[in-house]
Amino acid sequence: MTAHRIRALVDEERLADVARELSAVAPQEAAAILDGLDTRRGTIAFRLLSKDDAVDVFDDMSPNTQARLIDALGTAEVVDAFDNLDPDDRAELLDELPAAVAKQLIRTLPPAEREATAVVLGFGRNAVGRRMSPEFVHVYADDTIGAGLARVIERGHDAETIYTIPVVDAERRLLGVVSLRDLLLGDPSVPVETCRRPPVYAHATASAETAARRCVELGLPAMPVVDSEDRLIGMLTLDDAAEVVAAADDEDAARAGAREKLKTPYLRSSVFAITRARVVWLFVLAVSAILTVNVLEVFEGTLEQKVALALFIPLLTGIGGNTGSQAATTVTRALAMDEVRPRDVLRVALKEASVGVTMGAALGAVGFAVASVAYETGIGAVIGLTIVSVCAVAATVGGVMPLVAKRIGVDPAVFSTPFISTFCDATGLLIYFMIAKAVLGI
Amino acid sequence: MTAHRIRALVDEERLADVARELSAVAPQEAAAILDGLDTRRGTIAFRLLSKDDAVDVFDDMSPNTQARLIDALGTAEVVDAFDNLDPDDRAELLDELPAAVAKQLIRTLPPAEREATAVVLGFGRNAVGRRMSPEFVHVYADDTIGAGLARVIERGHDAETIYTIPVVDAERRLLGVVSLRDLLLGDPSVPVETCRRPPVYAHATASAETAARRCVELGLPAMPVVDSEDRLIGMLTLDDAAEVVAAADDEDAARAGAREKLKTPYLRSSVFAITRARVVWLFVLAVSAILTVNVLEVFEGTLEQKVALALFIPLLTGIGGNTGSQAATTVTRALAMDEVRPRDVLRVALKEASVGVTMGAALGAVGFAVASVAYETGIGAVIGLTIVSVCAVAATVGGVMPLVAKRIGVDPAVFSTPFISTFCDATGLLIYFMIAKAVLGI
Repeated sequence: MTAHRIRALVDEERLADVARELSAVAPQEAAAILDGLDTRRGTIAFRLLSKDDAVDVFDDMSPNTQARLIDALGTAEVVDAFDNLDPDDRAELLDELPAAVAKQLIRTLPPAEREATAVVLGFGRNAVGRRMSPEFVHVYADDTIGAGLARVIERGHDAETIYTIPVVDAERRLLGVVSLRDLLLGDPSVPVETCRRPPVYAHATASAETAARRCVELGLPAMPVVDSEDRLIGMLTLDDAAEVVAAADDEDAARAGAREKLKTPYLRSSVFAITRARVVWLFVLAVSAILTVNVLEVFEGTLEQKVALALFIPLLTGIGGNTGSQAATTVTRALAMDEVRPRDVLRVALKEASVGVTMGAALGAVGFAVASVAYETGIGAVIGLTIVSVCAVAATVGGVMPLVAKRIGVDPAVFSTPFISTFCDATGLLIYFMIAKAVLGI
Repeated sequence: MTAHRIRALVDEERLADVARELSAVAPQEAAAILDGLDTRRGTIAFRLLSKDDAVDVFDDMSPNTQARLIDALGTAEVVDAFDNLDPDDRAELLDELPAAVAKQLIRTLPPAEREATAVVLGFGRNAVGRRMSPEFVHVYADDTIGAGLARVIERGHDAETIYTIPVVDAERRLLGVVSLRDLLLGDPSVPVETCRRPPVYAHATASAETAARRCVELGLPAMPVVDSEDRLIGMLTLDDAAEVVAAADDEDAARAGAREKLKTPYLRSSVFAITRARVVWLFVLAVSAILTVNVLEVFEGTLEQKVALALFIPLLTGIGGNTGSQAATTVTRALAMDEVRPRDVLRVALKEASVGVTMGAALGAVGFAVASVAYETGIGAVIGLTIVSVCAVAATVGGVMPLVAKRIGVDPAVFSTPFISTFCDATGLLIYFMIAKAVLGI
C-alpha cells in the first residue's frame, strides 16, 4: 500500500477503508504514507487513526509533516502526541515550528521531559547530541548479568532503546557495550564484564551525519554518545540514525545535481519552488561557462580559417566532461567509504592521469582514424592528440577536486558532474586550439 | 583508528600494536579495517586476532575479503570461521569462491548447517531469500508473553536475531511481530497477541535491495521473510540489510558516473582495472556524441557565414546538459523515495517543461543582453531564444527519461548526467542552428 492508494481513498471519501488500511500496516509505514500526503489529506487520514496508533505514527513522521499537522490540527489536539515524543525527536520538531507554537507546546510537558528536551536542544543542529536520546538504561561493569538484566527490566520502560546497553564505571565513563541478547541468554551469575565489547560510540559534538552513517552501515541497534570527558550522556538509536542518513542522502543527491533540496515531495512542489531550487546553481554554471565563449573568441581567427574545427567542439567537450565525471564520482565514493584521504592527493592524481592517458589513447586512436578519413590527416592528428590530452586533464582534475573540497571543508559532492564538466569545457577548448595551431600551423 | 593506521603498523612490523588496536575496537570496525587492507597485510593482521575475535571479525568482513583470506590462509585454517558463519553470509561467500574450494568447505559443515545453507542457496542471487537467515526463533499468537519469552531464551542461541520476533499461527503463517522489548517488559501472563503488531515483511523471491532499503530506512532490527503461501521461512537482519544497501549504493554511484563498480578499494585497484571499469561507457558516450559532429556538418555552411555562432556552442550545450542533469537527478531521487511513479510521466513532463521555460526565460534574458552588446542584436536574439528552448527541452527530457527507464525495467540511475548531456548536446545544436537560420535569414 502506498500514499497513492490512500490519496485515492480519501478523495473517494472511503474513510472507513482509510482507517482500516492505515491500522493494518506498521506505524513506520503509516508515517511514511502520511509524509507523502498533502496537508489536507494528511490531516484527514491522521484524524482517522486510533489514539494509540496516532501517538506511534506521529513519532515516526518527518518533523516537516509533524509541523504541518500541528498547524492544521491546532495545538490542543496534538499535545498528547507531543508529550509522547522522545526528547530528540521533539527537539527536531521544535526547530520546524514557529517560535510561539514551540513555546506553547513546551509548556505542556512534565518537568522531567522538559529537562531532557533542554539537554538535547543544548547541542548544535548538526551535532550527534541533538539527535541522541537522553533516556537510556545503562549497567555497571561489576554488575552480574542477572543484576544487569533486572536493571534493564526495571528501567527499560523509560528508555528509547534497550538492545544495546552501555556499560559504565562508577563515574559514568563509557567502558563498552553489552547486547540485550547477551544479558538474556548469558549465565546470570557471571559479571557483565565477561560479555562486554569495545563500543562503537560518538562524541556529542561530533557530526550527526558521520555518526549516523556508521550506525546504519554497521547495522547497530544504537550507539552510545559521550561528553568531552567520555561520560555517557545519551544513545543514538538506529531509527533516528536512519532518518539522519536519509536527509543527508537527499542533500547529497541535490548537490550532485547542482541544485538545492526540495522541502516537499516532488509532485507537490510548485513550479516556482522547483525553479528556485535550481536557478541559482544554473546561473553560477552559466556564468562560468561564459569562460568558454572568451576562450573561443581568442581563437576566432583560427576558426575562420578552418571551420571544420568547430564541428568537433561538442564531441571534445563531451568526452572531457564525461571523463571528469567518471573520475569525480569514483573518488567521491572512495572518500565516503574512507578508502582515500585528502593527503592521498598525489597518489590519486598520478593514478587518474595514467587512467586518463590510457583511455585517451584508446579513444584518440579511433578519433584520429575517423577524422582522418572524413577530413584530412592533419585534422585527424589534432583530434587524436586533443582527446588524449583532454582525457588526461579531465581525469586528473575530476579525481583531485573532491579531495581538495574535502580538505577545505566543502562537501565533495559539490564538485560533481556539472561543475567538473563546466571546468573541463574551458580547459579542453584551450588545449584543442593550441594543438590545432601547432599541428596545422595556423 | 583506520585502515591507514593499521597498514602503517604492519609495515613497521609493530605486530603487538596491531593486535592490541584491533582487539580494542568492535568486530564490525575491525572487519571494515581488514576490508580496506590488501591481501598480504590483511592476512597478517587477521592472524594476530584471538581465535574468538577471528570468528566474529570474519563474519563481518565483506565476502570479497573473506574469499581473499581463505585463498591466502589455506582452507584448513579458516574452517572454524566458516562453520561459524550464518547460512546467508556463507551462501554469499560461496559465490565468491572457486567452485572447488566452495565444495571442500561445504563438506566441513555439520549436516544441519549444510541444510540451512542449501535453503538460502535455493534462491536467486538478488532475492531476499538469498540474504535471509533461516535460523530464527518465532512465537505463537496464543502463547502468553511469559511462554514466548521462555521460548526465546531457550532457542535464542541458535537464532541470528532475537529483537524482532515473528508471531505465527499453527500453520506457521506470519501474523505479525512482537519486539523482544515487549516480551521482556510486558505482563508475563497475558497473550502475545496483545502486543502483536502488523509486520513489515518481504516475500523470499522479492528484490533483496528493495527489502533491505525498507529495513534500513525504517530502522528495523529485522524483517520476516515468507514463502509464496505466507509461511515464515527466515529473517532479514539489519546488518545484512545494511550490507545489501551499501553494495547497491556503490553500484548506483557507479551508474550515475557512467562507469562500472570497482571490485577492490580505489587505491588498491590497478590503472588497468579502473580503465576497464570506465572505458566501455566512455566509448558508448563518445559514439553517441559523434551525432553532434553530424548535426554540425549539416550546418557547416551557416557556420562559415557566421563564425561567431561557433563561439556559443559550448555555452549552450553546457546549459542544456546542466538543466537536464538537474531534472534527471530530481526525478531519480523522487522515484527512489516513491514520490512519483512511471504513470505520472505526463504530470512530470508538464512540470519540467514549465520549470525549463521559467529558468530559460531568466537565463535567456541575460544571454540576449550579453550577446547583443558583444556582437549584434540578431545574434543576441538567437542566443536568447535558443536558451529558452534548450532549457525547456532538456528539463523535460531529463525529467521523463528516469520514468521511462523505470517503466522498461532499466535502472533509472543509468539516465544520469552523462547520458542526458550527450543527448541534449545533439538536440540543442539542432535547435540552435534552426533558430539561427530563421532569425538571421542565412
